[in-house]
Amino acid sequence: MSFFSVVSRDKDSDARTGKMILPHGVVDTPVFMPVGTLGTVKAIDFSDLTDMGFNMILGNTYHLYLRPGMEVISAAGGLHKFIGWDKNILTDSGGFQVFSLSKLRKITDDGVAFRSHIDGSSHFFSPEEVVRIQRILGSDVMMQLDVCTSPGISYKEALEAVKLTTSWAIRSKKELANYDDYTGVLFPIIQGNFFPELRKRSAEELLQLDLPGIAIGGLSVGEEFSVFEDTLAYTVGFIPQNKPRYIMGIGTPEYILTAVEKGIDMFDCVFPTRTARNASVFTHTGRISLKRKEYQKDFSPIDNTCDCYTCRNYSKAYLRHLFKSGEIMASVLATHHNIYFLKNLVDKIREHITTGDYAKFKADFLSAYSGGKE
Amino acid sequence: MSFFSVVSRDKDSDARTGKMILPHGVVDTPVFMPVGTLGTVKAIDFSDLTDMGFNMILGNTYHLYLRPGMEVISAAGGLHKFIGWDKNILTDSGGFQVFSLSKLRKITDDGVAFRSHIDGSSHFFSPEEVVRIQRILGSDVMMQLDVCTSPGISYKEALEAVKLTTSWAIRSKKELANYDDYTGVLFPIIQGNFFPELRKRSAEELLQLDLPGIAIGGLSVGEEFSVFEDTLAYTVGFIPQNKPRYIMGIGTPEYILTAVEKGIDMFDCVFPTRTARNASVFTHTGRISLKRKEYQKDFSPIDNTCDCYTCRNYSKAYLRHLFKSGEIMASVLATHHNIYFLKNLVDKIREHITTGDYAKFKADFLSAYSGGKE
Repeated sequence: MSFFSVVSRDKDSDARTGKMILPHGVVDTPVFMPVGTLGTVKAIDFSDLTDMGFNMILGNTYHLYLRPGMEVISAAGGLHKFIGWDKNILTDSGGFQVFSLSKLRKITDDGVAFRSHIDGSSHFFSPEEVVRIQRILGSDVMMQLDVCTSPGISYKEALEAVKLTTSWAIRSKKELANYDDYTGVLFPIIQGNFFPELRKRSAEELLQLDLPGIAIGGLSVGEEFSVFEDTLAYTVGFIPQNKPRYIMGIGTPEYILTAVEKGIDMFDCVFPTRTARNASVFTHTGRISLKRKEYQKDFSPIDNTCDCYTCRNYSKAYLRHLFKSGEIMASVLATHHNIYFLKNLVDKIREHITTGDYAKFKADFLSAYSGGKE
Repeated sequence: MSFFSVVSRDKDSDARTGKMILPHGVVDTPVFMPVGTLGTVKAIDFSDLTDMGFNMILGNTYHLYLRPGMEVISAAGGLHKFIGWDKNILTDSGGFQVFSLSKLRKITDDGVAFRSHIDGSSHFFSPEEVVRIQRILGSDVMMQLDVCTSPGISYKEALEAVKLTTSWAIRSKKELANYDDYTGVLFPIIQGNFFPELRKRSAEELLQLDLPGIAIGGLSVGEEFSVFEDTLAYTVGFIPQNKPRYIMGIGTPEYILTAVEKGIDMFDCVFPTRTARNASVFTHTGRISLKRKEYQKDFSPIDNTCDCYTCRNYSKAYLRHLFKSGEIMASVLATHHNIYFLKNLVDKIREHITTGDYAKFKADFLSAYSGGKE
């Protein structure tokens, strides 16, 4: 059986369902991966993720490399054992965090020198080193070190980033070939900013490596929604059906529904957990802020159509009180709801692709999902 | 069947087990009540408390009165409904918080005027008002408004506090008689600082009211352990066997074991939850700080004799990492352990009183519990 197989295809769009066979279990796609930056999905326990049916999370190589550091994770026998999660883990390469978080990023052909955002200490990531780190982490899916760029940069700069990303993908694949014991897979990352020809070039170059799956980086970075949609559709167009496609950093219902429609199989985002800690929660009629005064005596659940633990047991008035009081359980209960909400959405997405009415499902969902009060 | 009955007595001490029949279920004593200051036991969900076997928690009248306020809790139909906890709740009277937290406490015969520690707003608690508030909360056990005093005050001041506390107990009982619908019970609070004759006077005066149970306040406020022990034993000596005795603010194994030995049936404390959030956790060999460097690569659980969720699933190294990273799950997992540890201790206390070897159990526990590394 192959690593990835398409199970069903939507007749009206590029949406599809699939199965991905990974070392820690079979993953049904499309799949949303909660982000466990530092080896914990913030404010939710792994047992809750398991109970909800998740079997794949994301970890951040940059963060874990800095804290607790590879010595500790290596001594634990890898990330799964260290954090007590025996299902799949995808780790990013740190390319995006070096770009967005670290100080003094200096890119050479060799790799990237940077300073830690925690203590300013100096570090260097080469494509090879990042493969070695992720091998020690024991990632089920590892990502190549890539070069991220800001929207609005010149064609020349974007071209340089694409060239380097391709070169680093080749080196990553070569480095990984040294490790017979590694049972996971490596994905390259398509860059190219918002220049269609660079997206094409990046995709084509990386696909020549014939790695098991492929990621799309550098989208949802502040561009107009239509630009996101068009660039995504255009980029996916170069990827054959037999590769799982992973778009990095997508986590709202609108973006997820569109990404799936364009043929995306995997996505991750801190959005649902981060906004939950800020009292912003999903409902089927849009996001709401639990801090709003109007919920002071609203004893109904966040969403009366939701059957998550939080909605079955607690009211908006109570959750508002917890947020107003700065209670830890506010974050815990809101995070639980948001993660459950997305899990449920993605489960339904798979269901409706299978039954063949994905377009209607998407339209109905988004039609209802426009009455939020943030 | 009476409200409280002693089930078994220790032959070598005043320890006893009992049953207390309350509106939201029968409580086995001795009982430790986790503190849910603002209608949430910090960093632990009610379902976990229920799973551990808790059926009684404490709420703080002062805090709940200020936030979310009685209007909200009244609209919810009481505290149980507001917070989603259908087991017993004991609420304190606010006397201690007005004493320790609020600004500008001014005591008159009528009651106590104070300013909120949150926004400085002015409020007034009379004994009657505090009964009315707790009736709206729907407390299964309500406490009288009392006058707390600092260690080291004069006999005269302590005497005044005792007199007023007695007078307020009488008024509380009288006020409560107006409410036929109230199904809970009222406890008065013995004060008297560290003056034996005032403790005696306070106990005797309050016992004349023949309320269902009685509390002891003003202990464990910084005094030597032997002074605590002696004052407690002396005070309990005045209370008949048929009343449950509640000592306020006790929550470490040493204090609990001693309090039980002196005939105490109920206790509460923020200590296990507060210290957990500060990385300090119980083990059978004493408390340890999970932040210690020596746990960096210690992949064993907090306590290898503990079968709580945290100890079954996570290592000290992982928990240390979570604390070092400021992760919410650090507080959640450590709180779970500390609360479970105390529950387990108190369950064993009841068991050993019943089997008749409480003295040995206490000695053995404390002998092991002296090797902590905080």
